[in-house]
Amino acid sequence: MIIIVAKSVVKPGCKAAYIAAARELIEKSQAEPGCLTYDLYEDLNDPSTLTMIEFWKDQAAIDAHNASPHFTTIVPKLAEFREGPGEVHFYQKAE
Amino acid sequence: MIIIVAKSVVKPGCKAAYIAAARELIEKSQAEPGCLTYDLYEDLNDPSTLTMIEFWKDQAAIDAHNASPHFTTIVPKLAEFREGPGEVHFYQKAE
Repeated sequence: MIIIVAKSVVKPGCKAAYIAAARELIEKSQAEPGCLTYDLYEDLNDPSTLTMIEFWKDQAAIDAHNASPHFTTIVPKLAEFREGPGEVHFYQKAE
Repeated sequence: MIIIVAKSVVKPGCKAAYIAAARELIEKSQAEPGCLTYDLYEDLNDPSTLTMIEFWKDQAAIDAHNASPHFTTIVPKLAEFREGPGEVHFYQKAE
């Protein structure tokens, strides 16, 4: 299993638009066979921070996701609402 | 549901000790009634970063966790192996 934590700071006034644009990405990603969980969360201590937390079966599932039409079309749109590139971490269980 | 993402950078040579000390905390936390998932992950791009990713039913579950014997005894020990205070984010689903 690989977990992705993708943290974004949204531009002032763009939060609702970001969440609305992300909705289709979330629904279609959740439907992907290798997706265990995938959703968008807001930081309780910083309303401008929105973070996607994603649990994937393996790297192949992530590769398929990154090549999917919903990823390739929606993710660039989300970037328009974001301050800077965002912060993305990839995790695996610590053994 | 509330998600906690607690990111720590461990001191050189302290990673194995950190993971070993966290094991009991993980097992006992996972057994708590309000815990949906709780585990320790390593950053695939930065071996010194270890992050606890926790899904809790609600704030009451977190309060009970923070008051638990395993939390109050083990978390201070983990701090000994960490560089600085760590970075903790609390998230709820973005609506």
